[in-house]
Amino acid sequence: MSMKLYNSQLSPYSARVRLAIYAKGLDVTIVDGFSTPELEAELCRLTPMQKVPVLVHGDVVVPESEVICEYLEDLGVGPSLRPDDTESRARMRLLSRLGDLYVMEPMTKLFGQINPKGRDQAFVDARMAELDSGMAWLDHYLDGSPYAVGGKLTLADCALAPMLFFYKQIGPMFGFVDPFARLKSACDYYKGLQQDVHAARVIEEVEVALKRVMGAKG
Amino acid sequence: MSMKLYNSQLSPYSARVRLAIYAKGLDVTIVDGFSTPELEAELCRLTPMQKVPVLVHGDVVVPESEVICEYLEDLGVGPSLRPDDTESRARMRLLSRLGDLYVMEPMTKLFGQINPKGRDQAFVDARMAELDSGMAWLDHYLDGSPYAVGGKLTLADCALAPMLFFYKQIGPMFGFVDPFARLKSACDYYKGLQQDVHAARVIEEVEVALKRVMGAKG
Repeated sequence: MSMKLYNSQLSPYSARVRLAIYAKGLDVTIVDGFSTPELEAELCRLTPMQKVPVLVHGDVVVPESEVICEYLEDLGVGPSLRPDDTESRARMRLLSRLGDLYVMEPMTKLFGQINPKGRDQAFVDARMAELDSGMAWLDHYLDGSPYAVGGKLTLADCALAPMLFFYKQIGPMFGFVDPFARLKSACDYYKGLQQDVHAARVIEEVEVALKRVMGAKG
Repeated sequence: MSMKLYNSQLSPYSARVRLAIYAKGLDVTIVDGFSTPELEAELCRLTPMQKVPVLVHGDVVVPESEVICEYLEDLGVGPSLRPDDTESRARMRLLSRLGDLYVMEPMTKLFGQINPKGRDQAFVDARMAELDSGMAWLDHYLDGSPYAVGGKLTLADCALAPMLFFYKQIGPMFGFVDPFARLKSACDYYKGLQQDVHAARVIEEVEVALKRVMGAKG
């Protein structure tokens, strides 16, 4: 059964799914869900959230990045990106969730405040404080190894690689010189993770997409 | 190996885990993590997030409600609360996640605005609009049956039961007369779910805890 992913190269959630797809070596048709009015109309028919990523697998429609990743694991296709033991699985899901709830939530809101003109500084400060906490918690549960859990790529790395890429960008935009300075484990982890060929590919894709958008705006 | 849950009777996230524990018939020591300075200190040592619920199982410490629920499933103890087929599992995780990201997020912020004195009406209106969207999306993926997925209690019901209890309370507090009026599937689902003995128990526990807090404040 063929698979199609409605994607956006810049979206950290789409990047998370692409990383899982690359690491599993799956043959998935990846389309930019917002690139044509036809594709956007298709996407809107598929899910009321009108967000990417969405995976279509035969007549099964799966929205939400984490749900897609777990679905691919449950299908049992390609190498497993879930550790074998229950404790490591919990750690994998914890890291993904800490990232989703406490890093991506404030960071997404900061994206709307990048332009200094009309910036709401009190709002930025509050989101930055939340982001600081979220990153400190991630750092606490990472040990500086190149993979988040168990010495191989897992769904935690799929979630964290694009997030940490954006964290590196957003820090300096709002006046943090080196956002990783106080976060040794997270910093070492992110450096090591970039040695993984699939993680490096996705991080580069997001970087290229970001440069394109910034160029278009600048 | 013994299990201990650091809990709060009022927390919808703790209630989600309690529902899984009751439905699985597990022997877990459930303590109120904020009831004494000693327990609170223990909780703070266990996790930097300092949030409940946290499950301690031997030397494994598992924070975050969804992660705890998946951990209990991975252990294979008690009746399974995950459907057998991959499509239903995706639907289960989707419903939990829609609830966490798009219902609980705005609703948690509204809890801070219950007192009309000093209420920020523009903030409330924005969160209400987000909550409306989140609930419409949940409604879209529910079909009005008493269980969210596959005709038996799953982790989706564990997540949704306490959320929908709070949604029923928060609507009228902010001027919605009947929050479920436009959401037939969600409304029918919540009515049906309350016929489940374990769901009914948890909803009643949250109701009792809420009355106690409101009484203490009133």
